[in-house]
Amino acid sequence: MRSYAVLMFGCAASAQVKTSRETKGEFLSVAMAFCVGLMSAMYLCGGVSGAHLNPAVSLSFCIIGRLSWKKLLPYSISQVLGAYLGSAVAFLLYYDAIMDYNQGKLTVTGPNETASIFVTYPSEYLSLQGSFLDQVIGTATLLLCILPLDEKRNNPAPAGLLPVIVAAVVLGISLSMSSNCGAAINPARDFGPRLFTLTAGWGTEVFTCVCFLCYNYWFWVPLVAPTLGAIVGTCIYLVFIQWHLPDPEAEPDTRITDILETKPCGMKPVPMEKKGTEGFNRKASKEKEERL
Amino acid sequence: MRSYAVLMFGCAASAQVKTSRETKGEFLSVAMAFCVGLMSAMYLCGGVSGAHLNPAVSLSFCIIGRLSWKKLLPYSISQVLGAYLGSAVAFLLYYDAIMDYNQGKLTVTGPNETASIFVTYPSEYLSLQGSFLDQVIGTATLLLCILPLDEKRNNPAPAGLLPVIVAAVVLGISLSMSSNCGAAINPARDFGPRLFTLTAGWGTEVFTCVCFLCYNYWFWVPLVAPTLGAIVGTCIYLVFIQWHLPDPEAEPDTRITDILETKPCGMKPVPMEKKGTEGFNRKASKEKEERL
Amino acid sequence: MRSYAVLMFGCAASAQVKTSRETKGEFLSVAMAFCVGLMSAMYLCGGVSGAHLNPAVSLSFCIIGRLSWKKLLPYSISQVLGAYLGSAVAFLLYYDAIMDYNQGKLTVTGPNETASIFVTYPSEYLSLQGSFLDQVIGTATLLLCILPLDEKRNNPAPAGLLPVIVAAVVLGISLSMSSNCGAAINPARDFGPRLFTLTAGWGTEVFTCVCFLCYNYWFWVPLVAPTLGAIVGTCIYLVFIQWHLPDPEAEPDTRITDILETKPCGMKPVPMEKKGTEGFNRKASKEKEERL
Amino acid sequence: MRSYAVLMFGCAASAQVKTSRETKGEFLSVAMAFCVGLMSAMYLCGGVSGAHLNPAVSLSFCIIGRLSWKKLLPYSISQVLGAYLGSAVAFLLYYDAIMDYNQGKLTVTGPNETASIFVTYPSEYLSLQGSFLDQVIGTATLLLCILPLDEKRNNPAPAGLLPVIVAAVVLGISLSMSSNCGAAINPARDFGPRLFTLTAGWGTEVFTCVCFLCYNYWFWVPLVAPTLGAIVGTCIYLVFIQWHLPDPEAEPDTRITDILETKPCGMKPVPMEKKGTEGFNRKASKEKEERL
Repeated sequence: MRSYAVLMFGCAASAQVKTSRETKGEFLSVAMAFCVGLMSAMYLCGGVSGAHLNPAVSLSFCIIGRLSWKKLLPYSISQVLGAYLGSAVAFLLYYDAIMDYNQGKLTVTGPNETASIFVTYPSEYLSLQGSFLDQVIGTATLLLCILPLDEKRNNPAPAGLLPVIVAAVVLGISLSMSSNCGAAINPARDFGPRLFTLTAGWGTEVFTCVCFLCYNYWFWVPLVAPTLGAIVGTCIYLVFIQWHLPDPEAEPDTRITDILETKPCGMKPVPMEKKGTEGFNRKASKEKEERL
Repeated sequence: MRSYAVLMFGCAASAQVKTSRETKGEFLSVAMAFCVGLMSAMYLCGGVSGAHLNPAVSLSFCIIGRLSWKKLLPYSISQVLGAYLGSAVAFLLYYDAIMDYNQGKLTVTGPNETASIFVTYPSEYLSLQGSFLDQVIGTATLLLCILPLDEKRNNPAPAGLLPVIVAAVVLGISLSMSSNCGAAINPARDFGPRLFTLTAGWGTEVFTCVCFLCYNYWFWVPLVAPTLGAIVGTCIYLVFIQWHLPDPEAEPDTRITDILETKPCGMKPVPMEKKGTEGFNRKASKEKEERL
Repeated sequence: MRSYAVLMFGCAASAQVKTSRETKGEFLSVAMAFCVGLMSAMYLCGGVSGAHLNPAVSLSFCIIGRLSWKKLLPYSISQVLGAYLGSAVAFLLYYDAIMDYNQGKLTVTGPNETASIFVTYPSEYLSLQGSFLDQVIGTATLLLCILPLDEKRNNPAPAGLLPVIVAAVVLGISLSMSSNCGAAINPARDFGPRLFTLTAGWGTEVFTCVCFLCYNYWFWVPLVAPTLGAIVGTCIYLVFIQWHLPDPEAEPDTRITDILETKPCGMKPVPMEKKGTEGFNRKASKEKEERL
Repeated sequence: MRSYAVLMFGCAASAQVKTSRETKGEFLSVAMAFCVGLMSAMYLCGGVSGAHLNPAVSLSFCIIGRLSWKKLLPYSISQVLGAYLGSAVAFLLYYDAIMDYNQGKLTVTGPNETASIFVTYPSEYLSLQGSFLDQVIGTATLLLCILPLDEKRNNPAPAGLLPVIVAAVVLGISLSMSSNCGAAINPARDFGPRLFTLTAGWGTEVFTCVCFLCYNYWFWVPLVAPTLGAIVGTCIYLVFIQWHLPDPEAEPDTRITDILETKPCGMKPVPMEKKGTEGFNRKASKEKEERL
């Protein structure tokens, strides 16, 4: 289970990092490639809800109760390891390119800096509180967009296409919220590669570099802020959406109406005899219990 | 219900506005990010038909009868509030960036103007009637493209993917009809942020600014034109499409034939008691004739 | 039925033409917007197979037998009318912009020419036979890509998503085969707008203009070549694909096996009386052998 | 069966090659058009898993046991032939354009070289081992992303949409791993066109050209490396994913639980006789435990 997450992250992170180096392509193609990596990672590891892609998201799933708390730590660790592995593979893949780009020197600052291939840094104009707020809002938005996707009582996306839609959501966020400080919105995605650059020869500067208006040691922001953002986003979701949805018992009927509305599937509600319906109601509630 | 719409719009609008500020990315990425926001908002609030995303669309749904008239006003208000909230969040997120961009002055005109991040303005060459017509045509197109999407008797899209397809439609419209005056095609989307810029320090100029060929106080156009456009689009849809579709009573059977055609959905017609099957065969052939 | 096609084309064609004028956006966004128009048109008019979007495609459907021959002419005419209507709406929408662009003169040649907004013209380097071949290959490719999409015995796309996938196909073609002479691959799409430009004030030059290496009166190429291409593509499809698929009698069973494979749709094969299940098992294994 | 693969590749390869020549469009549009070609090819030939699109992938399917070993060679040959055919069609289509571009000389090097339209070459900075590694990693990634897509026991994609998702995966790879040496990740895709350029008049230089840091005769790398990469990727998949999935016997039931989770399709579980339902409950809960 854990090795999954590792691989998964190796895939997603490396996809992003490689593309960040991409000279053939533009900002848009980088964002798209990252999302494809994310999508593939979710298909690869069967995470239908993105739960195991991001410690912040995993935390939110613990809060909602879709994930058991004792899994949170191992998952998070394996996600960081996966991100580390991913950036290592990316570095290997583009070793020649990187060495050619900066004449063999791995620098964190200056025109030929290559650290930003792997790690996020704040923009010049950005204040510390600004960057912190950016990460909180970004992660809260992410969770507000992901949590409803597999909520049966809402308007769920097809299970087989969840990875695609989650990837689209992340694409939107990285297109709209990454200009401040790279939209890590994921502690593992930022910390794993940062550890890698530290060990790969960029030196301790990746942790201590002067981040313009932000104080040094900025690295803690993408660790703490997304975690806080996840909690905020989850609460907003619970208060404004979850608690307004029909409660499980009422669900069977909602489901039936769902059937009416999801004609595209080409099914008309199978007209059945009494007990059939009972059985179905019983099932429905039971199944909810398992899930919730 | 209302808080839904508010949140929903907060999400969609903020997504767009943020990206409008996007310096990393191009016109295309802005349009894409907005559509992702739209998609997420629809998943978040379970609006399968976009009904509650746009006062103009809500109006059209009232006309068709999918929405009760007394809901129209509260929805519209909550949508405006949501758009206001959304632009507020976006402003908060990019506060540092905006202040850095225009040296702390919030101006509506001039090279460093930032009002157009939130609000739409007509192009220089555009006449008043031109901009009015643009909004009418744009909104009519939007409704012609959205209304059939969940029409059982037409060629409906999968219910779980409606948000994706509606987002694609809006993407197409903003790629093809936004060069005149920004394709608001949504009173709430334009008026909410305009109120925000008024209160946030851009001053009354956001309402009274000289809009080149268009007279001042242009702001009423994105309020009135889309509403009119929605009525036009709905009428065209009713006259040329709706009224040509098989009548409801025929629907159950057509549904059954649907089954045969939506093989990909993996359903074989549920074998039921004799006459059911007969009816289905009869229908199938009949419906074929209609199509060919 | 006919008014459908008209509207449909009005929508699709106008979407493209508008975007062709698009200054905000690049080549890619134009192609994307056209495809969205195409998709919406298919949803709007319930054409699940693109049959009624293109005279060349309609012809091919007549050959295959999915469309009755006597419908071909009326369809084609209504498609041309629709394209004419579409370009008219687009012209209306961008009247101010076009007049501003070319100082009120509607010219077919020169730096400020605006005819190419609506009509396709060959590139300078292109020879007549080259442009003819280009249209033949393009249309044949289109049909090779579209015909299998709703073939139950092949690997069909979900019926509800056919418009999306057809739009993707056309996007690919316009990204890969439009640099020679605009990839009309559709007599109606080119001839309708050409008639419009003739009547709207561009003058007869739209038909007689000197097309560089191509002889004058080039306009007949996008009319004849796609038709020929459709025949070629259909024949290739019939010979290499259609005739290799299991014969119709076998189809019902293949359908059942389909069910097994299209799990994502969440249907389990309805358990039925013995022989049904046997037959299905037999088929399933058999079909597997064929595939592996 | 074979002619399928030929055609299929003709389609996919030609799509890519044509677009590689594309002057109207950018790097992104080229990648997108290639993926559309790939998607169409998969729909055209009913390959639901990409098995017959790439000798390296076919090899991997042999290893996993989804394809019989004796089909490997004929498939690979037909794939090379298909790629050859595809580049031939593309050359035909853009004959005028190519001749105009390089004044009638078909050269492999120099500013006007046109060989790279059809064949991949390494970048200047790239070392031989670097290019080899690039192909191995690229192909391994491809297989890690493709293999799970139709695995019932994982989180499978809808069968009817597999071509779309595989195309998205390849898009991501070509956006993220093509800057080193063009991301052939497919022996047929590179060798077929290379043979074509040899026979079409580019001369033997296409095989012997000096590839900067890489030794001459570089052409063997895209032949050997992807094959090795496929083996690597398949092993990683088997070890870390496949072997961790519930065993096949459990599969039929897991399938049934799938039904419960793919509600979006709007189907309620068809109420059936007691024991069936029981079994389903047991499975459902069990599978839940595994997941959480």
